[in-house]
Amino acid sequence: MNTFGNIFKLTSFGESHGAAIGGVVDGCPAGISFDKDFIQNELSRRRPGQSELTTPREEKDSVEFLSGLYEGKTTGAPIGFIIRNENQHSADYDDMKDIFRPSHADYTYQMKYGIRDPRGGGRSSARETIARCVGGAIAKLALKEYPVIIQAFTSQVGDIWLQGDYRDYDLKLAESNAIRCPDMQTASEMEALIKEMKSRGDTIGGVITCVIQGVPPGVGEPVFGKLHAALGSAMLSINAAKGFDYGDGFEAPLYTGSEHNDAFMPNRNLKKNDAKFRKNRPITTRTNYSGGIQGGISNGQDIYFRVAFKSVATLLREQYTVDIHGNVTLLHAKGRHDPCVLPRAVPIVEAMAAMTLFDYMLLAGIRAPFNTPCLSPM
Amino acid sequence: MNTFGNIFKLTSFGESHGAAIGGVVDGCPAGISFDKDFIQNELSRRRPGQSELTTPREEKDSVEFLSGLYEGKTTGAPIGFIIRNENQHSADYDDMKDIFRPSHADYTYQMKYGIRDPRGGGRSSARETIARCVGGAIAKLALKEYPVIIQAFTSQVGDIWLQGDYRDYDLKLAESNAIRCPDMQTASEMEALIKEMKSRGDTIGGVITCVIQGVPPGVGEPVFGKLHAALGSAMLSINAAKGFDYGDGFEAPLYTGSEHNDAFMPNRNLKKNDAKFRKNRPITTRTNYSGGIQGGISNGQDIYFRVAFKSVATLLREQYTVDIHGNVTLLHAKGRHDPCVLPRAVPIVEAMAAMTLFDYMLLAGIRAPFNTPCLSPM
Amino acid sequence: MNTFGNIFKLTSFGESHGAAIGGVVDGCPAGISFDKDFIQNELSRRRPGQSELTTPREEKDSVEFLSGLYEGKTTGAPIGFIIRNENQHSADYDDMKDIFRPSHADYTYQMKYGIRDPRGGGRSSARETIARCVGGAIAKLALKEYPVIIQAFTSQVGDIWLQGDYRDYDLKLAESNAIRCPDMQTASEMEALIKEMKSRGDTIGGVITCVIQGVPPGVGEPVFGKLHAALGSAMLSINAAKGFDYGDGFEAPLYTGSEHNDAFMPNRNLKKNDAKFRKNRPITTRTNYSGGIQGGISNGQDIYFRVAFKSVATLLREQYTVDIHGNVTLLHAKGRHDPCVLPRAVPIVEAMAAMTLFDYMLLAGIRAPFNTPCLSPM
Amino acid sequence: MNTFGNIFKLTSFGESHGAAIGGVVDGCPAGISFDKDFIQNELSRRRPGQSELTTPREEKDSVEFLSGLYEGKTTGAPIGFIIRNENQHSADYDDMKDIFRPSHADYTYQMKYGIRDPRGGGRSSARETIARCVGGAIAKLALKEYPVIIQAFTSQVGDIWLQGDYRDYDLKLAESNAIRCPDMQTASEMEALIKEMKSRGDTIGGVITCVIQGVPPGVGEPVFGKLHAALGSAMLSINAAKGFDYGDGFEAPLYTGSEHNDAFMPNRNLKKNDAKFRKNRPITTRTNYSGGIQGGISNGQDIYFRVAFKSVATLLREQYTVDIHGNVTLLHAKGRHDPCVLPRAVPIVEAMAAMTLFDYMLLAGIRAPFNTPCLSPM
Repeated sequence: MNTFGNIFKLTSFGESHGAAIGGVVDGCPAGISFDKDFIQNELSRRRPGQSELTTPREEKDSVEFLSGLYEGKTTGAPIGFIIRNENQHSADYDDMKDIFRPSHADYTYQMKYGIRDPRGGGRSSARETIARCVGGAIAKLALKEYPVIIQAFTSQVGDIWLQGDYRDYDLKLAESNAIRCPDMQTASEMEALIKEMKSRGDTIGGVITCVIQGVPPGVGEPVFGKLHAALGSAMLSINAAKGFDYGDGFEAPLYTGSEHNDAFMPNRNLKKNDAKFRKNRPITTRTNYSGGIQGGISNGQDIYFRVAFKSVATLLREQYTVDIHGNVTLLHAKGRHDPCVLPRAVPIVEAMAAMTLFDYMLLAGIRAPFNTPCLSPM
Repeated sequence: MNTFGNIFKLTSFGESHGAAIGGVVDGCPAGISFDKDFIQNELSRRRPGQSELTTPREEKDSVEFLSGLYEGKTTGAPIGFIIRNENQHSADYDDMKDIFRPSHADYTYQMKYGIRDPRGGGRSSARETIARCVGGAIAKLALKEYPVIIQAFTSQVGDIWLQGDYRDYDLKLAESNAIRCPDMQTASEMEALIKEMKSRGDTIGGVITCVIQGVPPGVGEPVFGKLHAALGSAMLSINAAKGFDYGDGFEAPLYTGSEHNDAFMPNRNLKKNDAKFRKNRPITTRTNYSGGIQGGISNGQDIYFRVAFKSVATLLREQYTVDIHGNVTLLHAKGRHDPCVLPRAVPIVEAMAAMTLFDYMLLAGIRAPFNTPCLSPM
Repeated sequence: MNTFGNIFKLTSFGESHGAAIGGVVDGCPAGISFDKDFIQNELSRRRPGQSELTTPREEKDSVEFLSGLYEGKTTGAPIGFIIRNENQHSADYDDMKDIFRPSHADYTYQMKYGIRDPRGGGRSSARETIARCVGGAIAKLALKEYPVIIQAFTSQVGDIWLQGDYRDYDLKLAESNAIRCPDMQTASEMEALIKEMKSRGDTIGGVITCVIQGVPPGVGEPVFGKLHAALGSAMLSINAAKGFDYGDGFEAPLYTGSEHNDAFMPNRNLKKNDAKFRKNRPITTRTNYSGGIQGGISNGQDIYFRVAFKSVATLLREQYTVDIHGNVTLLHAKGRHDPCVLPRAVPIVEAMAAMTLFDYMLLAGIRAPFNTPCLSPM
Repeated sequence: MNTFGNIFKLTSFGESHGAAIGGVVDGCPAGISFDKDFIQNELSRRRPGQSELTTPREEKDSVEFLSGLYEGKTTGAPIGFIIRNENQHSADYDDMKDIFRPSHADYTYQMKYGIRDPRGGGRSSARETIARCVGGAIAKLALKEYPVIIQAFTSQVGDIWLQGDYRDYDLKLAESNAIRCPDMQTASEMEALIKEMKSRGDTIGGVITCVIQGVPPGVGEPVFGKLHAALGSAMLSINAAKGFDYGDGFEAPLYTGSEHNDAFMPNRNLKKNDAKFRKNRPITTRTNYSGGIQGGISNGQDIYFRVAFKSVATLLREQYTVDIHGNVTLLHAKGRHDPCVLPRAVPIVEAMAAMTLFDYMLLAGIRAPFNTPCLSPM
């Protein structure tokens, strides 16, 4: 259950305070130019210590690749990689060895395994998502060739919403501020709220929206393997995720069928910004409440979805809880913790989306223009 | 991709207007008393023609079991079953052979496969969910032994919400009305809305809430196999599903960590209705915003989640669309269709929840008190 | 564990004396012309009652397809099928309900499941292989298009061997006699031996050799998914199989590396019968001790392998055994049984080979010239 | 396809001359005491340079564990590990970059991937089996607790056979000589043959026999997941393996059913050496031609099987071959190579057997006496 994917697969390992986080990407096609700088940069996007909004822990998170590459290209062999853990303050957890922290996985791991590594949450730590970012970055390298573009951003923090629709914004601006919200004004309001939470030793949650452009029609599997079910499972597997919807999602019930259906129409009046992704297709839809997926299969329109995240469970204030013997005790969290996961979760959402999409494109048999094997008679 | 589950697995087959819907349940433990009446009754709960609110199609949906049973018990061998299709009006679809119905899967199947069965939506029809109800009913038979109880109900239709919390209602009342809402007053408002939609040839969506009680702590897999990720994938695979959240879900971002954390406490003051499920556990939580799952693993509290459904895409009014050649055409839907899927989706949500839970309990190695194999020295 | 394959998958169900044997083929590409007569004929090849050498049971074994087809072609949806059991004499097994037959699976099923269907061996009966023959016939329909040709034959019965090499015979002659051996003289010796065994109420085993021609280079997966490992697992899963080897197999140890290596050479002097399969390839090998597979991946030469089968465990003479209570008892087998499985196992070996090969060609991304989906921009 | 197993799973990575060989063991139960010395010792058994019979390459093959352990025990989290490659002479392969070595995987990898790492065979090198030995050693640690004992030995080299039956020898003696044959006289004959081959720059193959004792009845899955099919697939996935049989295997056809059936009998006259493994079972068999498996499921008797290995393809003499352009060329192998893989393959056979057995015991739900999770109400 530490493996993700069907053809393009990531197997991850590692604990927060163990020797290393690492993984194996299996099923990656041969011939992809392997841009290590791009991958390292994706890791740096989720790294702590990027701004005041995130934990002051400094983790270099430098990835070492151990296999699967030859002369700068993927060979089709599994790509093993590790990121050494450094700068871990395991002593911060000495007092918590026998305590169940509220809304963490301490109690459930103890009940499942009868043993657990208490240092930094062990395997349940969000530090595990580093491996996902490596896998996602490799998938992104491949998706660039089609091209399929994935862009996530923070659309809600606490009760502060980004107004309107993703089409109203230049999503690339999301990377220009610490909160990763494409509207500067909203971003600064979100920042203010997070700083307030931090000053109170409290935490806050939010919502990330993700948009995927360039997926051709026909990607997705019927029945149990619907594309949105795979995306949903991928997103809900991220630490602190509480919900997932796509297209108009939880708002869909408010619209009647006649309001909500996406009418097909000939692709005559292509809007300019559509030209890149849908220029050669004779059919398009007037609206896109479906979120680019019908019957679990992509229809060539933009795919978009939301992921809800709860507030961080570790508070820098006292909380009552119980210990492993059932006794009430007072918990004083030490350590360096995020007041809000949203900014750092944006690249993780993108990574999981990239792995899911690339895996599904391979399942659908869609070939990219990289150096494909010569399987026809030589 | 027509197989669901890891150990307890359902493989389904069949099209809306083909010879039969059917499936194979593999991995079901031996020794379960096989109550065919219970299973047939579960099928009847999703059957069309139950009330004015649903399609007037009459489908008997009688299931025949072909294998895996001996003297009234499961043997551990795969359970094959079929439900013959009857009373299909395939001629209703003659006009639609070359037309892409809006917000249906016609276009995406055509793009994926280059061929499709247009009669009643073929494989993409919700008639496929009959097989899920059979699989779910078998899982429910097994879960009864622990006991684990699963109860879903309609909590929203259009803009009509069931107020408050599931704990405020007697959920068994949901089966006492056609809409499957546990509050009679709300149910009648929902019914009125659906009837209005039907009279206008329009349709409406809604939300189903599901509550699972009796799951012991320790069920769920870390990282990619989190229990809520599996439930999310299962629910999003249901036709017309648009979103999934668990616990306080999309409301979680509105609460700070200090408001939202579920404090652990000794299990001294057990409320009476808890006694059944949690009587022997020394630790419980004061609140349950987590929805019974922490770090992807059950903590012994109630598991609850919501599933959003869009309005039915088939309207009994004219819609413009395009045909397979890209020409604009006017679509006149014939046939007998639901104005709202919610009432019939309630047993499907339960079925998918039952299969997911039972599969995960087997993954966790939890044994039920049915006739288990004598694997110790004979 | 009742599912076979990675992309092209067969899930089978059914017991010897249950209502039906059946299965689901999932992952079959869309657009294959579905020749039902060919499939039924493949079933008839494994049917009992074909000659004096096989059991006199008459089983029509008529297959009904329930889904996955539209206007004579596969649609990409799962293909469900059933074969009703008829002419079962379950009463023959009444005395054996509590008895463990020697070298059958009665005891091991009882120990694994704590319950078993004793009629005709239940799930462990070779009658289950009907479903494999259906799956294999569908795979053969697809493989014909490349073309890939699979031909198995009986190469040993008891101590009677077919002399020499498969290249010395016209393999199509195997279908011209009851024993399915391509040499008439050897076939008649084998028949005489089987008839002698039958007259004594005894049974005998043998070896089946299988040759696969037309597989292009590059089919197979490295490390754990080697093509010969997949073929081996497929063959060893057939009832009564005791061994598998490929190329020079168990004779390989007798040759030194310098004798055994298959030298590469330019493909200049193509032998006539090679032209069909290897005409466009610039490289071939001088010998083929490798059996067409190097490092787990096909090299374009003929793939060939052997499967050893033990003698049938059911004897028409008395045997001592024990019952479920551990008491010694005398077993009098009733029923109609094969004195030798070899003739009927030939089509089963071919079926498993066909499913394995087609699955691996899909894994390798090799496209056939049937109606493939239009996944490029429409 | 670089993952092995169903519940206890090994994912391996690494090339012969890359940075490291490594892997991830997922699904290992929590609470196993992790004896690192035992694991390192298992690695040393397959290490080159152990005697004159093997390659003089010196590889320390020291394993570093990166995760999944806490205070000397497994935690249930995935166990990541790496073995750094050292002492690689990649320059030995400079001349061979564009040459296809006979009976190696150079040509097939090139055809499959369109790119390959030519240094030491890249991913197709037997150096990959280090990861299998680590996974197998972990499985052995767990199996010891039941106890299940696995012992392999060299039973044939070239035309020199170990006479008689495994029961005639003290199998522990296999570790006392370089060839790993339990009979000293036969071992010295085998050694002489290998040395002769080495002096001629030639190579030789052989057969390894493996015996598994202590498996309780009921382990194995019916139909496609038969225990011997899983063992066969595991063994055939080892580099240079050409065949697999179990019980009397390819000799089975020579015996009639009445000679070959394993009669059940009450377990009254227990032989002394059986007492350890079968003392509490009321039923046993008189003979064991079945090799401990009936219908794909263990019957409690010894499981034994054979694996045939071809001679090493790399010769230290000249061979003609072709290059990537189809031109004939003369190949002069450099490097340090084994004249016979058998001695070093013995621990690999054991490792694959251990992983397969432990995986199947977990599939069968058999619990070991290590610290199991407290899944009952706490």
